[in-house]
Amino acid sequence: MPISLHTPLDMHLHLRDGDMLKTVAPLSARTFSGALIMPNLVPPIESKEDVIRYKNRILETIGNEQFTPYMTLFFKPTYSRSFLEEVRDEITAVKLYPAGITTNSEGGLSGFDIDELRPTLEAMSDLEIPLCIHGETGGFVMDREAEFVPIYEKLAKHFPNLMIIMEHITTKESVEALDRFENLYATITLHHLMITLDDVAGGMLRPHLFCKPIAKRPEDREALLKVALKAHPKVMFGSDSAPHPREAKESPGCAAGVFTAPIALQALAELFKKNGASAENLQKFISQNAQKIYNLKPIQKEVVLTEEHFIVPKSYGGVVPFLSETTLDYSIHTVI
Amino acid sequence: MPISLHTPLDMHLHLRDGDMLKTVAPLSARTFSGALIMPNLVPPIESKEDVIRYKNRILETIGNEQFTPYMTLFFKPTYSRSFLEEVRDEITAVKLYPAGITTNSEGGLSGFDIDELRPTLEAMSDLEIPLCIHGETGGFVMDREAEFVPIYEKLAKHFPNLMIIMEHITTKESVEALDRFENLYATITLHHLMITLDDVAGGMLRPHLFCKPIAKRPEDREALLKVALKAHPKVMFGSDSAPHPREAKESPGCAAGVFTAPIALQALAELFKKNGASAENLQKFISQNAQKIYNLKPIQKEVVLTEEHFIVPKSYGGVVPFLSETTLDYSIHTVI
Repeated sequence: MPISLHTPLDMHLHLRDGDMLKTVAPLSARTFSGALIMPNLVPPIESKEDVIRYKNRILETIGNEQFTPYMTLFFKPTYSRSFLEEVRDEITAVKLYPAGITTNSEGGLSGFDIDELRPTLEAMSDLEIPLCIHGETGGFVMDREAEFVPIYEKLAKHFPNLMIIMEHITTKESVEALDRFENLYATITLHHLMITLDDVAGGMLRPHLFCKPIAKRPEDREALLKVALKAHPKVMFGSDSAPHPREAKESPGCAAGVFTAPIALQALAELFKKNGASAENLQKFISQNAQKIYNLKPIQKEVVLTEEHFIVPKSYGGVVPFLSETTLDYSIHTVI
Repeated sequence: MPISLHTPLDMHLHLRDGDMLKTVAPLSARTFSGALIMPNLVPPIESKEDVIRYKNRILETIGNEQFTPYMTLFFKPTYSRSFLEEVRDEITAVKLYPAGITTNSEGGLSGFDIDELRPTLEAMSDLEIPLCIHGETGGFVMDREAEFVPIYEKLAKHFPNLMIIMEHITTKESVEALDRFENLYATITLHHLMITLDDVAGGMLRPHLFCKPIAKRPEDREALLKVALKAHPKVMFGSDSAPHPREAKESPGCAAGVFTAPIALQALAELFKKNGASAENLQKFISQNAQKIYNLKPIQKEVVLTEEHFIVPKSYGGVVPFLSETTLDYSIHTVI
């Protein structure tokens, strides 16, 4: 049976800049109605002018495609209320990175002192600007996200009206935190629904599956899958699709990131079907939940997926996608 | 202060064959008095003739160096008592690999049925042939070794006179098992004393640190370090030095193995000193414990290490060593 997905949204997307932007932006724009665009460029997006200029570069790149780049700012504890008021209409969220925790996050936050953060986070709360967080500590790689959960909870408690999105969650601890605080939400990637550390390093080492947060344990994947398949109203799809040139992935010092954007809808359709979840739940996971959480009115788009084999390309313009050269059960038939 | 190490032994070494043997064997033979040579060639070493021929290839390769290759057979549950009696004088141990668990282990053991194993293991026990085991299950990569501990214990219990060596242990669970059964011993590598999964995949992905068993958690490394530094009488140094050509390590599908043999003594001297352990304990860890456990009378050799900086080469004949291009505190001054 064909599956029709309406207004798919990718609530966590890296479009990069320059040549890479030109390679990847059209791929997301073709099938998604919109995406939340991460601000960790070099240098990061930190001003209204940065946001507008980056947005224009994206729009220019995608040409006639109907696609909304929902822009974000790179969080700084120095953002003032007046600055946030001024930039409010240009952004959908502010993204917080702990310093040095992932690709291009060197200028991120070094601590989570509530008093230091209060002016900015209260202003965001009043202005209804969601705070997206890459939640990892500097601890042991398998513990970093679980160790961050108390920080999520501290922020959720001190700023009860601030909408906090736990980005690309990978652990059962984060899933459990979702229901403990009203103002905590989460995005989940495709790859964290499919792989564990076993896929990255259990057989041979597979650099194209290396990402941050790293894929965790089987019970973590199960916990993520459970809330995604039932379309828990506080979880949204966010691909965290993070392209790197093949050479940067296939050399020692391999960069972190999995490139999933162009194959995400096909793979999600297969994943939901194989796990006995309904197309309605996929629809919620891929769009309605995000629309409600972020109060979005996305561009209308309908993606029809049919049960025809789709062989994932070896590369998209020099970027190796997730599931490269494997065969998926669903193909994109039409995008209206 | 210079450190003199007498008759260093490497109780777990991969010398490979062909060109790789020619590259790596002289490096071990220069500084070690002897090493236990792993039998997982393609095809594996499974007969007396295989053993003798491989031993001769090794001896031919090392030329005039004073070095004993302590040979091993690749375990098969079909080895008869008469076969083992016949091969006894040519081997120091038999090495057991669970099927498919690491490099060239496809012909390994598929199960641990005591009744199936009894004839061979009782014969080995009677003939005082030690059994070396790569102890990992097919489970989740971070759990494989801990899950194998009950198998070690089952074997230790059913064959109380069989000397069982838990090879290249990486977890606190294996360390704890050491003292629960008289006939359980262990080798520990250099790299597992120094790295955790954080080094492999916590920052960038580092293929040259990828090995099996994979480096584990900080508390596991601490447990290993504790027994090594105090030269626990049941632990021995076994490098598990496992060379692969640079290209095989630096491409997707990176092979498992860390190449440490030529820098192991220098790095161990530094590690023991930095952790406040005595040169006497290093001496026991690097030789006396193994001599007692295996009842060896190795070729006399004295390696004098001085506190002069040693910059680890980028490569040894196309094989990238552990700690490549870093500076160690100790150099090998003379080998007598």
